Amino acid sequence: MHALEQKILSEGIVLSDQVLKVDSFLNHQIDPVMMQQIGQEFARLFKDAGITKIITIEASGIAPAVMAGLELGVPVIFARKYQSLTLKDDLYRSKVFSFTKQIESTIAISKKHITATDKVLVIDDFLANGQAALGLADLIHQADASVVGIGIVIEKSFQPGRDLLLEKGYRVESLARVQSLANGTVEFVRD
Amino acid sequence: MHALEQKILSEGIVLSDQVLKVDSFLNHQIDPVMMQQIGQEFARLFKDAGITKIITIEASGIAPAVMAGLELGVPVIFARKYQSLTLKDDLYRSKVFSFTKQIESTIAISKKHITATDKVLVIDDFLANGQAALGLADLIHQADASVVGIGIVIEKSFQPGRDLLLEKGYRVESLARVQSLANGTVEFVRD
Repeated sequence: MHALEQKILSEGIVLSDQVLKVDSFLNHQIDPVMMQQIGQEFARLFKDAGITKIITIEASGIAPAVMAGLELGVPVIFARKYQSLTLKDDLYRSKVFSFTKQIESTIAISKKHITATDKVLVIDDFLANGQAALGLADLIHQADASVVGIGIVIEKSFQPGRDLLLEKGYRVESLARVQSLANGTVEFVRD
Repeated sequence: MHALEQKILSEGIVLSDQVLKVDSFLNHQIDPVMMQQIGQEFARLFKDAGITKIITIEASGIAPAVMAGLELGVPVIFARKYQSLTLKDDLYRSKVFSFTKQIESTIAISKKHITATDKVLVIDDFLANGQAALGLADLIHQADASVVGIGIVIEKSFQPGRDLLLEKGYRVESLARVQSLANGTVEFVRD
């Protein structure tokens, strides 16, 4: 997605060979117009997939997921990373290990919002090791629903997440694929 | 806002005299079309206020805030409740006590995303005791920026938050004002 790549080049900050910071438009400050374009692109890619629901994870996945949901005309669920007082129903739970934070957290969604007939699109802001996407897919499988695809805003293609998801048979659509962050420079994957 | 009140009446669950659960369209599952309508209503209310930025708090504030940002043509910042590895810059921080969860948390925004010339709209999903809104306003004041208003999706008008914010001179616009949750029934404030 050209506009997203341009945004990454102009505003992304390469913190290390592994870490790309995009907190001016995606992870902390959000550019709503960019999010709308991202939502439109996800909708274009998955428009014929019969999607009935989008699932993402708090917090940075919410903006792109809601814009995609608006375009596709489907509800969005954001998995929570902890259990709050008003989320007491029966929950599907999964464990997710964050390599960035070096912690394991439990993610959960309410059972009542997903059924076996749902065809679900998973959306997340980043794909690195694939653990968050696998955790979200696990929640969907627990409901006997189908994962029709995984939509990623920024993929770090030099990390193992994409291959892991492809090996499991998931369709992965990443709007920007970062080949390398070496020498403080963002290089994208070119076909 | 009539459509929001209807949504609350049809999908909200009164858990107690104090707790209204709206996790089918706002707090867990999100209805993107309702969020768009909410964004349009905030934009209508604040269109002449010269807003340059919207600030909300993760996670449930993000969807309505991003839709309002899209309508108003301004960026959205979501305050984080904890400090992540990629958010290491200088931060404005404030303490927020949650009566619901009975815990105090630190909220923070990056200093670089807000300046003294910003005219900021605070948006949050719920107003009850007003602690989150006051914490967000405190972050804005630390930057010497202006709080031009506080936009709330659902206000629990029987709790002290609204009066607290009005006493401090803030403009408060709540799209649904809940007068009472007694007897398992939602009653709205009528002028």
